[in-house]
Amino acid sequence: MGKYVIGIDYGTDSCRALVVDAANGKEVATAVKYYPRWAAGKYCDPQKNQYRQHPLDYIETLEASVREALDDSPAGTAQNVVGMSFDTTGSTPALIDEEGNVLALRPEFSENPNAMFVLWKDHTAVAEAARINEVARQFSPDYTSYVGGIYSSEWVWAKTAHVLRQDKDVARNAYSWVEHCDWMPALVAGRTSPGKIVRSRCAAGHKAMWHESWGGLPPDAFFSAIAPELQGFREHLFRRTFTGDTKVGDLAPEWARRLGLPPSVAVGVGAFDCHCGAVGAEIKPKTFVRIIGTSTCDIMVVPYEIMADRLIPGICGQVDGSAIPGMVGLEAGQSGFGDIYAWFKKVLAYPVERIVGELPFINDDLKHKILSETLENLIPRLSADAAKIPTTASGALAVDWMNGRRTPDANQRVKGTITGLNLGSDAPLVFKALVEATAFGSKAIVDRFLDSGIAIEEVIGIGGVAQKSPFVMQTMADVLGMPIKIAAVEQACAFGAAMFAAVVAGVYGKVEDAQQAMGQGFAKEYFPDMGKHKVYLELFEKYRDLGRFTENHLF
Amino acid sequence: MGKYVIGIDYGTDSCRALVVDAANGKEVATAVKYYPRWAAGKYCDPQKNQYRQHPLDYIETLEASVREALDDSPAGTAQNVVGMSFDTTGSTPALIDEEGNVLALRPEFSENPNAMFVLWKDHTAVAEAARINEVARQFSPDYTSYVGGIYSSEWVWAKTAHVLRQDKDVARNAYSWVEHCDWMPALVAGRTSPGKIVRSRCAAGHKAMWHESWGGLPPDAFFSAIAPELQGFREHLFRRTFTGDTKVGDLAPEWARRLGLPPSVAVGVGAFDCHCGAVGAEIKPKTFVRIIGTSTCDIMVVPYEIMADRLIPGICGQVDGSAIPGMVGLEAGQSGFGDIYAWFKKVLAYPVERIVGELPFINDDLKHKILSETLENLIPRLSADAAKIPTTASGALAVDWMNGRRTPDANQRVKGTITGLNLGSDAPLVFKALVEATAFGSKAIVDRFLDSGIAIEEVIGIGGVAQKSPFVMQTMADVLGMPIKIAAVEQACAFGAAMFAAVVAGVYGKVEDAQQAMGQGFAKEYFPDMGKHKVYLELFEKYRDLGRFTENHLF
Repeated sequence: MGKYVIGIDYGTDSCRALVVDAANGKEVATAVKYYPRWAAGKYCDPQKNQYRQHPLDYIETLEASVREALDDSPAGTAQNVVGMSFDTTGSTPALIDEEGNVLALRPEFSENPNAMFVLWKDHTAVAEAARINEVARQFSPDYTSYVGGIYSSEWVWAKTAHVLRQDKDVARNAYSWVEHCDWMPALVAGRTSPGKIVRSRCAAGHKAMWHESWGGLPPDAFFSAIAPELQGFREHLFRRTFTGDTKVGDLAPEWARRLGLPPSVAVGVGAFDCHCGAVGAEIKPKTFVRIIGTSTCDIMVVPYEIMADRLIPGICGQVDGSAIPGMVGLEAGQSGFGDIYAWFKKVLAYPVERIVGELPFINDDLKHKILSETLENLIPRLSADAAKIPTTASGALAVDWMNGRRTPDANQRVKGTITGLNLGSDAPLVFKALVEATAFGSKAIVDRFLDSGIAIEEVIGIGGVAQKSPFVMQTMADVLGMPIKIAAVEQACAFGAAMFAAVVAGVYGKVEDAQQAMGQGFAKEYFPDMGKHKVYLELFEKYRDLGRFTENHLF
Repeated sequence: MGKYVIGIDYGTDSCRALVVDAANGKEVATAVKYYPRWAAGKYCDPQKNQYRQHPLDYIETLEASVREALDDSPAGTAQNVVGMSFDTTGSTPALIDEEGNVLALRPEFSENPNAMFVLWKDHTAVAEAARINEVARQFSPDYTSYVGGIYSSEWVWAKTAHVLRQDKDVARNAYSWVEHCDWMPALVAGRTSPGKIVRSRCAAGHKAMWHESWGGLPPDAFFSAIAPELQGFREHLFRRTFTGDTKVGDLAPEWARRLGLPPSVAVGVGAFDCHCGAVGAEIKPKTFVRIIGTSTCDIMVVPYEIMADRLIPGICGQVDGSAIPGMVGLEAGQSGFGDIYAWFKKVLAYPVERIVGELPFINDDLKHKILSETLENLIPRLSADAAKIPTTASGALAVDWMNGRRTPDANQRVKGTITGLNLGSDAPLVFKALVEATAFGSKAIVDRFLDSGIAIEEVIGIGGVAQKSPFVMQTMADVLGMPIKIAAVEQACAFGAAMFAAVVAGVYGKVEDAQQAMGQGFAKEYFPDMGKHKVYLELFEKYRDLGRFTENHLF
């Protein structure tokens, strides 16, 4: 038998384990498990944009997914696994105590959302992000300069400050914080105590304002100025960070047992899902990789000699080694993408849930069946109907900021708008406007890169929406006026983690070699309709006007 | 037996006949019939805002409703009917030939929408309305000065010009035009030939730029400047117009037979529905009467000595005698009201229609039942859920121009907008924003009257939405900061027509006497929550900002 590696991908809703043949990248088995507490809607308050996840959701789904994937693999596979790496959403931090326990794992905090992981899309820390930006303007250097010049409420320091200010009990017991992508390898390698956690360059550089040029994290004075609650926190954190080709350690014996793996498995430094996904989708210079799901995360890699001293304003960051070690990784993204379609789906599902769901003359089984059929078929049906509507410069027009705006120029206070509505604007027309809005949001990011002198020669799409929504991808190609290739590998994030695991385990000397040997190529390509592109260029100007207005008139 | 009068009310969807005791206003019987061709969606194109109605829809439903109402009345009632008056929607004109036939009644035009009545809400004549306004600025006097200074695409001259320009065949056969409210009494009194039609002051003054001060209609040079197709048209129209207390004639023998009435029945000059409704709801000076249905029509009456030379900009008109003879009638209105809720209902019904409606595992009967239950219960359920949402200055915000804007300051090119959306904005929240938007549209009108020095002491609501939507009416009271009384009589328009019929038949000497004797008072009153009113004053400023933006950036 050959050598196998496991990539673990923690998404917004689930944990996936992917077992891969390290020699050729062929998938051996995969399993996905949904977070049970999250699926039940616990610890969240959508009206307040509060989204928290319990660490037990992560632990339970890790065990279950790895065990199932190994069970589905040929006999003997588990014994030949040599490496394991993780990717997670981010910034998704949690507070830990002096022993390194995530606070929600302590009995007294087990039901306290402030003691849990604060999911990337949680926007409760809007005020704290504003404060960080205010303070950053008063310091030199500007510690936000490598994260696009604007610190977001989605990121670790804003979230930490928010939770500490909100919850005195939690604050009294908080010693440090940990990103989800740091905590998973730390946990399985038995290195969760604050001093031993091996910190991801990707997470630290993109979200925590870590940069080599100022000696790591910003100084304590900076954090104290943001919120007195942060004082002293920095000293319990880290100076050094590590790229994904670094080994954290071997699997701790307890975790080897729990996962059914040999303790010799090398555990790699974790990274954010989009960076791993970009690696799995064979990112290289001049390639714009988009992970398109509930939101998008967009990655580019730029060789040092091209990047030089260039600072790109308003993106999520530029970090040496965040995707491919040895190049500068650039991250951008839209904070709402598939989530916006899901929002519209939920709005449209209201009569089915609230009226059909309560009709006295049909039984519960049938109601359940009607609801599930509706939810399952709604977006495909809307897409099919929307695709028949001609593209003109005078239909409905939307701005895609229902979940705030991440890039360009993060602003979590902005909201979504739909205009151009008349009495003939039906559901497919509104859906078309929403799809176009998300494509315009994509174009705003592409334009920012181009305007900053970063060339883009091709777009690669990965993630659920890229794979399953031809109407969305075709619209995006039409709006961008660029072809879009869809990666052949379905689980690019887990696959990229597996590539890192192969490097960490010593199968390959560097990530590019792993990409070369393991890469699976592309399944599909969308070519732009340049006639529609011309119409979209006109609509895009209107989108910018509408965006500027909504940003200047917050409702 | 006493004396009876019949009020006939032609609404957007149906014809209603109301038989009333002329002595005390008590309802004897009523019947309503829906336009069959209209109900089948014929001759309309909602995407183009084209709404046409076939004259046979009017004729068939007149016969059926009058006959049914008389059948439901005590024996002998028909023989004691003394008067009959009509109200209709407006401006709803049709082209007629030299003999006075509505063109669609000629076989060769029977299926041609351009030969039919162009319903009030048809917005195909936007370009022609713009041209009328352009030309009006070049003439002195400004012929739009008594219709608010802006001519609307909903009005007869814009519609006439549009149809004539669109359809050469129709244009060749068109000799004159007739408003629906002029055509009905002309038809039943046997006076349809162009020279014999008795023209309504209400229609002519509010929609056709007729004014005593310039000798009736504007000169032919004015119309020729608008469109060469209009040249000579004025000469086939009219110089004099008449208020609703004027008799057109007696019932023509053929129509007496068709309706089952004696030929001695006096037929009154017709008027627009809202003006009749205001009379039926006991309008008097300082009372703001709103007919609230698919759209609103708002009426005030002002004594000559108060009105003096005052010109109120941006309303639908100020016409001597249009509601109550002897006072100046002011008209305003929102071009979308209940229609906006119906639009949202239709958007939300999409999954029930398109997905549930096509599920293979339930039969057609059940599908039909599910759909009808959904459509019937959706607005009440949304209202109940929306009423639970706190009123704050930072929720979703909408502008109510999905059907353009009628007043203040007509502009049919503007469209609807919804902003402030986030991923937590559910269907009831969006519905609440739409209800608030229609109330803000109401406030914009009230403010225009107040700013023009026309005092408002009370608001009276009539029409379907006023009677059936407590959530909407309470929101309107809260936004206006004024109490709103709901007329006790359910069919105020038909009832007002019946009051006019009683005057025309000589039962009363003037309309105020008929109101005094026949009026039915009020069923309900909504009092404003002044706490919410304060929040709404703040939101109203944002509504105006959003409105200004959407008006300056047409999509």
